[in-house]
Amino acid sequence: MPVRGVSILGSTGSIGRQTLEVIDAAPDRFRVSALAASRNIEVLAQQAQRYRPALAAILDESLAPELETRLAGTEIQVVAGETGLQAAATLSEAQVVVGAISGIAGLAPVLAAIGASKRLALANKEPLVSAGAIVMSEARRCGAEVIPVDSEHSALFQCLLGHRREDVRRLILTASGGALRDLAPQELKAVTAERALAHPTWKMGPKVTVDSATMMNKGLEVIEAHWLFGVSVERIEVVLHRQSIVHSLVEFMDGAVLAQLSQPDMRLPIQYALSYPERAPVRWGALEIAQAGELTFGAVDLARYPCLRLAYAAARQGGTAPAVMNAANEVAVSAFLAGTIGFIDIPRIIEAVLERCSPASADTLEAVIGADAEARRITHKLLR
Amino acid sequence: MPVRGVSILGSTGSIGRQTLEVIDAAPDRFRVSALAASRNIEVLAQQAQRYRPALAAILDESLAPELETRLAGTEIQVVAGETGLQAAATLSEAQVVVGAISGIAGLAPVLAAIGASKRLALANKEPLVSAGAIVMSEARRCGAEVIPVDSEHSALFQCLLGHRREDVRRLILTASGGALRDLAPQELKAVTAERALAHPTWKMGPKVTVDSATMMNKGLEVIEAHWLFGVSVERIEVVLHRQSIVHSLVEFMDGAVLAQLSQPDMRLPIQYALSYPERAPVRWGALEIAQAGELTFGAVDLARYPCLRLAYAAARQGGTAPAVMNAANEVAVSAFLAGTIGFIDIPRIIEAVLERCSPASADTLEAVIGADAEARRITHKLLR
Repeated sequence: MPVRGVSILGSTGSIGRQTLEVIDAAPDRFRVSALAASRNIEVLAQQAQRYRPALAAILDESLAPELETRLAGTEIQVVAGETGLQAAATLSEAQVVVGAISGIAGLAPVLAAIGASKRLALANKEPLVSAGAIVMSEARRCGAEVIPVDSEHSALFQCLLGHRREDVRRLILTASGGALRDLAPQELKAVTAERALAHPTWKMGPKVTVDSATMMNKGLEVIEAHWLFGVSVERIEVVLHRQSIVHSLVEFMDGAVLAQLSQPDMRLPIQYALSYPERAPVRWGALEIAQAGELTFGAVDLARYPCLRLAYAAARQGGTAPAVMNAANEVAVSAFLAGTIGFIDIPRIIEAVLERCSPASADTLEAVIGADAEARRITHKLLR
Repeated sequence: MPVRGVSILGSTGSIGRQTLEVIDAAPDRFRVSALAASRNIEVLAQQAQRYRPALAAILDESLAPELETRLAGTEIQVVAGETGLQAAATLSEAQVVVGAISGIAGLAPVLAAIGASKRLALANKEPLVSAGAIVMSEARRCGAEVIPVDSEHSALFQCLLGHRREDVRRLILTASGGALRDLAPQELKAVTAERALAHPTWKMGPKVTVDSATMMNKGLEVIEAHWLFGVSVERIEVVLHRQSIVHSLVEFMDGAVLAQLSQPDMRLPIQYALSYPERAPVRWGALEIAQAGELTFGAVDLARYPCLRLAYAAARQGGTAPAVMNAANEVAVSAFLAGTIGFIDIPRIIEAVLERCSPASADTLEAVIGADAEARRITHKLLR
């Protein structure tokens, strides 16, 4: 395989850093072409000094002069703002663009990468949750590959390869149950941010860890799977799996089930998205199945996880409803992490926002971004 | 999918009967073209009366007149002997030939089916264990598909589809541990045939059930997997999995593992072998993963399962060694089932036969059949 240039949108976050570890481990396969971050100029400058990409992009334009100062004397071109991110997403020497800028800010550069027919290694949820119809139809139009980086969707992608899509009966996403899975329902009221951040199996950022505790992350993943694989939401299920070893399963029409397994390690799906259809011979999350202990599965109680119920409802409603839900969730989780609201208030607020936002078509980027902004406004208002 | 004609070699055995159940459940996809059996004329005649194939074949030529009498007044052509089986294996209206005649007698008709470029749905072990090099090179030469019917190999086949063979690190076969898995080693001495036949998860014929208790079946499967998938024996492992839900796993170079799961039901891999690359929408072994309970895995103790150790050794030795081992095992298991020898004598006898048979090349059918016959002679002699 010739060396692949990688542009990392969101290089300073958890996925971005782990992407750099993957590149470090297989320098004969991957090189860093561009690095982009929203605001973390400290880490971005360090990364740029080390990896010497052609481009370093910072979303917050006010930080561009400082980044230029820090990279003075290098050949690295500094770019800023939305156009800067788009330059990183469309750089000719990058074959793969890792989309890992969280929030709706990640949407425009992801669409730019698709427009440039790059392979998109997609880690942030908004492009598919809020604008799945646009992203997937653009990808088809431009012949751009969209390879998921999420462990669950990477698992589904791997299980579906080589099998006829029309033979699929169900996609089954596994859920660890999150940090609060062993609490009684009445204990959830008093849960602190600190408690909700103690994830049993995965190390992730705080937003995703809270989403895991509410199971909103699984709801978002159901919507993403729908768009990625063209399977209706009714045929996408969630099953509890405490060990996070089986990352997801596909059930076929004849009763056969395929599953993908590994130790929980995001570097495996990241590397796969970069190297597909090949696999790089660096083992992440290596699993000795004989030592795996027991794997258990159980049904999800939607009454215990109202966020998952809301996500299914928003997905069925369609249009801008998932974008609204996602934006409301983001604001509500921030408020919970700041100690402003309680854990069980998160779904209540999302539900209230969904009731207040009139559903609309999500056929244009403007409609999606508008719905996202309106939902944030309403959520902030409700929080006050 | 147009209706596929199926010729069943070994229609009166366990796999043959289950193949007919699969055909019954999807009559729009499959029809019976030929039925063949070794000796069970009673059941063969009943099946032929019901399914009205073009051909009914009986291996034991002395039974042909009686079969003709029983099928008098039908359009069914009765054929007998080895040429009769070959006629069933090469019948023009059959697209798929199910190879389920056990023992070395199944080898020649399987090769005939391959020679006629049929799809071979392979259930009997001898063609690959004893003559894997011949069978696979003939299949390549004739462009014949070999689709495994064993649940383990069907699982591996499904997990490998769509993935690059050079990215495979290990094939991992699961083993239930058989009927005696919970006995202490010193208890194995006194085990009766009845006790060894009480398999915890699968319903199979007596020979296979004893092979499961000794784990010779897993040894034979390691050799089959080697030939089917072109993976060296060193990279094929066996892992204990008591529930028989995960039928086998493939580990790739990057650490990812794919597994195939279902309730234990042979009709699933049989149907898959008939319908591949499509899947028939009849669910066999349907699994509700949330109700699957716990799945456990453990290392296999080769000291406890000497037959598995012998199989690995024979595979590494190559040539006619696997054919010799297989023949010795067949005779030894018959003797155990007849009460002539004890359970722990089975591996001792096989080992003694392997020591007495000089290894030879297994490049010709004659060499393989000769080694099989010699091994049987020597085993019978040792038993006296």
